[in-house]
Amino acid sequence: MNTLIIYAHPEPQSFNAAMKQRAVDTLAARGHEVVVSDLYAMKFNPVAGPGDTTQPVDNSYFHLQIEQAAALLNSTSSSDIRTEQEKVRRAELLIFQFPMWWYSVPAIMKGWIDRVLSYGFAYGGGASLQGKRALIATTTGGPEHSYQPDIRGSVDLLLKHLTDGVFGLCGMEALSPFIVYAAARSSDVQRKAALDEYEKVLLKLIEE
Amino acid sequence: MNTLIIYAHPEPQSFNAAMKQRAVDTLAARGHEVVVSDLYAMKFNPVAGPGDTTQPVDNSYFHLQIEQAAALLNSTSSSDIRTEQEKVRRAELLIFQFPMWWYSVPAIMKGWIDRVLSYGFAYGGGASLQGKRALIATTTGGPEHSYQPDIRGSVDLLLKHLTDGVFGLCGMEALSPFIVYAAARSSDVQRKAALDEYEKVLLKLIEE
Repeated sequence: MNTLIIYAHPEPQSFNAAMKQRAVDTLAARGHEVVVSDLYAMKFNPVAGPGDTTQPVDNSYFHLQIEQAAALLNSTSSSDIRTEQEKVRRAELLIFQFPMWWYSVPAIMKGWIDRVLSYGFAYGGGASLQGKRALIATTTGGPEHSYQPDIRGSVDLLLKHLTDGVFGLCGMEALSPFIVYAAARSSDVQRKAALDEYEKVLLKLIEE
Repeated sequence: MNTLIIYAHPEPQSFNAAMKQRAVDTLAARGHEVVVSDLYAMKFNPVAGPGDTTQPVDNSYFHLQIEQAAALLNSTSSSDIRTEQEKVRRAELLIFQFPMWWYSVPAIMKGWIDRVLSYGFAYGGGASLQGKRALIATTTGGPEHSYQPDIRGSVDLLLKHLTDGVFGLCGMEALSPFIVYAAARSSDVQRKAALDEYEKVLLKLIEE
């Protein structure tokens, strides 16, 4: 099961990094290909714009979807986008590993979505990522009780813009998000238990 | 009614730019202070990280919330963050003007939220933006019928991570999103009508 982990965290010693590493170890040990896009380490550019194509079809007006479709067709996407799209093509499972900031992905990961999952590549004009599966693996600052439905709507509902919006529009199967609550405030024992639980989820995905 | 427009679009001739301008003209003509943060023009840095503070409290481990709280307390936030926070402080109304990308804001605007609405400034530790109102003013690529509840959940539901998540957590009043569907595919007459409708919404807000 070829896997691409899109990983975003500014701190290499974070619990997110540990989750990313556990996924790499678990999958690689069983002979699966795992590729990691470490967006902070790569200094990935998150800002979609005219620089996304080396040869714009319209120099007088930047229209994102039109430029994205043309860049794909003419192989004129910027090299960082082409590299990431090639990783997506090979992957059967995409894992989005990130700290939940404002009930969503960090900006650097939103930019990966904006630029890499482009019109004509991931959706639109008959394009689709059907057949691939997508998993949100994330941590929260607050404890689980602050994410109850009666406060701001359930987490599942707040993440719908990713599971139904992003994954759904691309035709990917959205797996149940794996959420570790209050990771920074957890004990070592709790963190180890969370990593073990995450490994179990991944092993189950391999078997399916 | 002091207003801050946080505006993100890569194309200065876009309909989003026209909406931004209509808001500026409408409010300024009636004597209201309007400030625009044009994120693309400013080349705003959307990537939260160690550079957000000039004097980190922990050089060996970057913890976003801890650094944000300390930077605010010690006035050591990076100057771009301080400038934006001062704009937020003065504003009674925040307008988020953007093209809806993946049922959310463009990455450059997500980064403004990640970095400017910091822990200790906008939420957390007793901080709050209570008393301010927040308006989403946005455009979509697809027509209105592709945003029906039976497809991917209603737009209101997909935007909950912004209205309930971001605005709600800061204690701001979330106004009803103003959405112009399929802006790029509309006729000049339709666009003018949409701008006029938007002006009416703004005038009603002034009166309240």
